[in-house]
Amino acid sequence: MAISNIRYGEGVTKEIGMDLQNLGARRVCLMTDKNLSKLPPVNAVLNSLAKYGINFQMYDNVRVEPTDQSFLDAIQFAKKGEFDAYVAVGGGSVMDTCKAANLYAASPSSEFLDYVNAPIGKGKPVTVPLKPLIAVPTTSGTGSETTGVAIFDFKELKVKTGIASRAIKPTLGIIDPLHTLSMPERIVANSGFDVLCHALESYTALPYNERSPCPSNPINRPAYQGSNPVSDVWALHALRIVAKYLKRAIRNPEDREARANMHLASAFAGIGFGNAGVHLCHGMSYPISGLVKTYKPKDYNVDHSLVPHGLSVVLTSPAVFAFTAQIHPERHLEAAEILGADIRTARIKDAGLILADTLRKFLFDLNVDDGLAAIGYSKADIPALVKGTLPQERVTKLSPRPQTEEDLSALFEASMKLY
Amino acid sequence: MAISNIRYGEGVTKEIGMDLQNLGARRVCLMTDKNLSKLPPVNAVLNSLAKYGINFQMYDNVRVEPTDQSFLDAIQFAKKGEFDAYVAVGGGSVMDTCKAANLYAASPSSEFLDYVNAPIGKGKPVTVPLKPLIAVPTTSGTGSETTGVAIFDFKELKVKTGIASRAIKPTLGIIDPLHTLSMPERIVANSGFDVLCHALESYTALPYNERSPCPSNPINRPAYQGSNPVSDVWALHALRIVAKYLKRAIRNPEDREARANMHLASAFAGIGFGNAGVHLCHGMSYPISGLVKTYKPKDYNVDHSLVPHGLSVVLTSPAVFAFTAQIHPERHLEAAEILGADIRTARIKDAGLILADTLRKFLFDLNVDDGLAAIGYSKADIPALVKGTLPQERVTKLSPRPQTEEDLSALFEASMKLY
Repeated sequence: MAISNIRYGEGVTKEIGMDLQNLGARRVCLMTDKNLSKLPPVNAVLNSLAKYGINFQMYDNVRVEPTDQSFLDAIQFAKKGEFDAYVAVGGGSVMDTCKAANLYAASPSSEFLDYVNAPIGKGKPVTVPLKPLIAVPTTSGTGSETTGVAIFDFKELKVKTGIASRAIKPTLGIIDPLHTLSMPERIVANSGFDVLCHALESYTALPYNERSPCPSNPINRPAYQGSNPVSDVWALHALRIVAKYLKRAIRNPEDREARANMHLASAFAGIGFGNAGVHLCHGMSYPISGLVKTYKPKDYNVDHSLVPHGLSVVLTSPAVFAFTAQIHPERHLEAAEILGADIRTARIKDAGLILADTLRKFLFDLNVDDGLAAIGYSKADIPALVKGTLPQERVTKLSPRPQTEEDLSALFEASMKLY
Repeated sequence: MAISNIRYGEGVTKEIGMDLQNLGARRVCLMTDKNLSKLPPVNAVLNSLAKYGINFQMYDNVRVEPTDQSFLDAIQFAKKGEFDAYVAVGGGSVMDTCKAANLYAASPSSEFLDYVNAPIGKGKPVTVPLKPLIAVPTTSGTGSETTGVAIFDFKELKVKTGIASRAIKPTLGIIDPLHTLSMPERIVANSGFDVLCHALESYTALPYNERSPCPSNPINRPAYQGSNPVSDVWALHALRIVAKYLKRAIRNPEDREARANMHLASAFAGIGFGNAGVHLCHGMSYPISGLVKTYKPKDYNVDHSLVPHGLSVVLTSPAVFAFTAQIHPERHLEAAEILGADIRTARIKDAGLILADTLRKFLFDLNVDDGLAAIGYSKADIPALVKGTLPQERVTKLSPRPQTEEDLSALFEASMKLY
């Protein structure tokens, strides 16, 4: 278990200039995206940098749902800048891009594929020392401020993959609920679904002592270790917060209690899945995002089609948990109960169906698109979706129940329509 | 929030030689105490060091309930050895002694009082880099494997005090439930009471946003920050484990499930209180231990009188929580419910009394000495006990309810007899 440092509180972002002074930073790279660059979270950081006289350069060209190309652009900026510290202000896209920029700037002789997860890349371990990175999340979903993972779209293969190493985990995550007040409704919803799936997948992931291979040297063990007694605490706690606060946070931007709690839940679930891992919802989400056709979600101010990560993850969740509940059904039933199901007369063998129904009802109440069909996919796309899932074995092998290509195909088919 | 790395599992101690290899350690200091040096936990470490060819020196002279003198002896050993890594195998006494040895060996020009908590010492911040320290707890109470605190008896003042700095937190805590099988009954009980009080005190501590002073620069904030949304998760989770498993762990050494869970609970509560802090039970415990007369507890194989730390902490707990419940009574009631009280018809204004009664019943069932009188104190000792509590303001000021000398006096008096 490796756990990040986080600082929580309304307005704590204003301390970031002091943090950078304490780190002795002289040339700071501030990363964000075009939309955010004009919004209060970036302003709060800029004010603090000015107040403490921190020398910095801003990169606001981060792509929402980044690609290998957009990573490389940020990496080039970082290499040129010779920075001694990084600040990422944004959602998962910004934080992940900043992690990659920090990594490759610190390792100038590496090829891009060197650190990308195998089998797509070489999955080399990181041995170079990185610069400090302070992450300031502005969405409440990814938990990227607490994890050693950076995800991107690999354009050539039309598939999402990433880099996973404890070395790229932020030095400090600043969880400032004030930033959540800038979030439009669908961004709150979709990022909240990511928290929901982080919690459900890490709680139901293959247990740490059943994972294989189990490298004998601890240094070679993967960041994603399988569910364990520590990640379970985080997963369940995050799930309880989602059950209590997600709907409120979506419906009312002024509900500061709900938005603050979801902002914390995102970090909590991040600590959980950052150690336990995720499995099928995430593994299957990468081709769902990667193969996007013309879908343009409400509330995302971007010029390209995209399936928001949280949406791509949650649309398969009813089918996935109906499938995995054969293993550890009691955990699936417990999750359903936390999400509001009455399980007093439930039979353990129905655990998967009960959790799936609970999730469908939850999503229906929140006006979520009616399955993969509603975001532009049809039966004809299933072979490509399955093909795009196969290389995601880093996560899919953490599914408690092993799955064949036929299983994956059936899961995509069952996710075409939800209600 | 800063959280240690921990590794959990039966037998994981055998990996410690690899960990030291991975750290590049060439001269390791292995610290333990005389009793443990012949027991399985130390054997497991020695076997692993031999297997991986790790060069080490053993110091087995740690004093159970260490003093400034015993700290200095270990520090001298560490200074002479010029070690590049430390391994502590034992309870809080061993881990705390090892932290101090690592600190002062890395800071050879410092006076002993430089790093000791103010007002007894100078409470200087630690700026020197320390060597890696791997902690292998053999008791289930202190949580010292996860904290930046080292406690000792300051003989001259007859009072316990300590050193508190994130810098002395172990690099890795190895939570191996096999080691709990060596623990005699009363050591399980007393160390479990320490977990109980860590959880109760950190959950009821002054909230982080009401603490003062609140240094504007984050680097100057104390390790003990007050109760907060992250430490609350750990405190409650540890309390639930104590409620479920402590009695079983005490009564049956073969109950591996119970002992393993208490071993984890100790680390969990450590993560909680290591960030939130403790308050009156701990503040008042230091003179209770420091002024010990002739009490020699069962199951502790030592040649001096001592009040085990967990016992010194728990004996005042009914009086303390009856006193503090005026502030945040709902948290006190919630704790009572977790510990088994039926609160369906409880009135919130009775929260303190309900928690106190629940604790008294819990302690009675576990054959705990009947209050301070049973371990050798009388009314005549109260002024000295109060005087010994006053310098513990690092913790006592985290009490949710401020306390006068008269209040402290009344709390000691109410703790003379429990049943």
